[in-house]
Amino acid sequence: MSVIRRNPITGRWVIFSDEAGPPPPTDGRCPFCEGNEALTPHEIIAWGRDGREHDSEGWSVRVVPNAHPLLRIESRLELFAEGMYDAASGTGAHEVIIETPEHKRSLAELPRDQVARVLAAYAERINDLKGDKRFRCIFIFKNQGAEAGAGLPGHAHSQVIGLPVTPKAFKEILVGARQHFLIKERCVFCDILQEEMDMGARLVEVTEHFAALEPYASRHPFETWILPRRHGPDFEAVTDAERDDLAGLLISVLGRLEKVLPRPAYNLFLYSGPNRKTNPDRWKTLAADFHWHIEILPRLFYEAGFEVGSGLFANAVTPETAAKVLREAERPL
Amino acid sequence: MSVIRRNPITGRWVIFSDEAGPPPPTDGRCPFCEGNEALTPHEIIAWGRDGREHDSEGWSVRVVPNAHPLLRIESRLELFAEGMYDAASGTGAHEVIIETPEHKRSLAELPRDQVARVLAAYAERINDLKGDKRFRCIFIFKNQGAEAGAGLPGHAHSQVIGLPVTPKAFKEILVGARQHFLIKERCVFCDILQEEMDMGARLVEVTEHFAALEPYASRHPFETWILPRRHGPDFEAVTDAERDDLAGLLISVLGRLEKVLPRPAYNLFLYSGPNRKTNPDRWKTLAADFHWHIEILPRLFYEAGFEVGSGLFANAVTPETAAKVLREAERPL
Repeated sequence: MSVIRRNPITGRWVIFSDEAGPPPPTDGRCPFCEGNEALTPHEIIAWGRDGREHDSEGWSVRVVPNAHPLLRIESRLELFAEGMYDAASGTGAHEVIIETPEHKRSLAELPRDQVARVLAAYAERINDLKGDKRFRCIFIFKNQGAEAGAGLPGHAHSQVIGLPVTPKAFKEILVGARQHFLIKERCVFCDILQEEMDMGARLVEVTEHFAALEPYASRHPFETWILPRRHGPDFEAVTDAERDDLAGLLISVLGRLEKVLPRPAYNLFLYSGPNRKTNPDRWKTLAADFHWHIEILPRLFYEAGFEVGSGLFANAVTPETAAKVLREAERPL
Repeated sequence: MSVIRRNPITGRWVIFSDEAGPPPPTDGRCPFCEGNEALTPHEIIAWGRDGREHDSEGWSVRVVPNAHPLLRIESRLELFAEGMYDAASGTGAHEVIIETPEHKRSLAELPRDQVARVLAAYAERINDLKGDKRFRCIFIFKNQGAEAGAGLPGHAHSQVIGLPVTPKAFKEILVGARQHFLIKERCVFCDILQEEMDMGARLVEVTEHFAALEPYASRHPFETWILPRRHGPDFEAVTDAERDDLAGLLISVLGRLEKVLPRPAYNLFLYSGPNRKTNPDRWKTLAADFHWHIEILPRLFYEAGFEVGSGLFANAVTPETAAKVLREAERPL
């Protein structure tokens, strides 16, 4: 059983679960490879397989429950006090999106239509989990490389977490964006897009529907954001054409990073709007003040004490330098 | 030249400096060892040396400017706009407190009077730097082990940073403590102390002046806080008797951690009240609502994507279990 506890000073939630920490070692067989479908829990989605039985070969993208879930979807959500403290039951969804049946290919090495299918799986899982009013926030992320927290077996995958609380870093983005909106009556991400398109120095690549840029106060060298040029709070509302455009840009941006950094460890975070069904009043302005986006965070170093303890980061590479290097790192076809 | 930039959404400050990242390799000689005093910038403090010249042997605790400072004390503080963004000059102090002349001993292995001297050096540096109205916050931290961000050469030391901005993690603690105070008219840390002393399950050790405990929502296994039992915002105001008591407790707690975890990497953070000379109005209630304290954060794993991106942590060891293990891990004399 897992439980979620709240730090009474900072409001940070912590999941206590036996499944936290590095995953247990496997017997050497990769549970995400085609042919090993029996090694995972029963699939939630498998695309590309025609008329064959569940949990069998022949798929292109497959979504399964995490075999070591931090949260349990079958538990009843309870919020309770423990002395002066606040806690919630460990209720939530924890799934794995297997991005390819092939073991060796990274997301950046997949064909564009395959990356578009992975993004479609992101959208489908967000849509489905937002139907469950217990979940305030659906967070999708990807860890590539040990320094970014990826466990074995290294087979390309993303993770989906549906949460009954709004996690701290996401809440800060929501609250910050709202504060900007309350003062300026404009979306802060739209303002950033405008500024960066005018300036140019921090842009990496601009497509019909998206801009990839190095943010003004990047935490780590080569931190890269992908912002949709059309304002909207929800990733799952993107059109097919936008998703195809995003797939191409994602391949290009990750390819540039892989060209510049040797075997980069990175995290990819998808910040899509919280589940407004859980509390329509609370989120009523959110359609105007939040702008879904992707953050890619290369993990070149351990976060040192200074950064963890103070929350102030130190970065040796300005976003202007990083953007120039990435612009010049065009990927060979 | 370094510069400090603000994330316009979350308010996180990032220092851009050529000195960020791992320190450059040395020629194998440890600049912190007795006899190698010429390898550091000129000392700010050296205690225990009688009548001999500066930057020579014979000291017990020595404080020097960081040879690779993130911030420069000699620069004029300027706050400025860059387009829609906010920035500050990279003005600040960055110093090293060398905890012992001996290369091989960790802080936990030093005699109690030596640890008390290290703590006195912390207090003296905070006092001195708070005389400079440019600095809002003096943050002292210690990285032990590579996973905690310690560079070579591994000689026991702490770092002092004097900052012209309040870093994000510290601000969250200050704001959270104030919110609690505004509602309850009590200090949240005093409330936590009361709750934990009554409960007992999360206590590690209690001395005349201090309590060491595992916090209710610990981020990592064996995260340990040391709270003074007497309310006060400023570490530098502790008495000699309190400092001696704290030295004994710190040795005991670190010794317990070293007994339980093999060669633990950890960070130690000292949260002492911000510099109220910079803005007396802003901090007027702070003497009542903030409570200085130490956090010790073992770093057993990399922080994974989920934790960095969501700000929600996952922890496999409850503080109740950790406290029991640490209570039983009494250190051999």
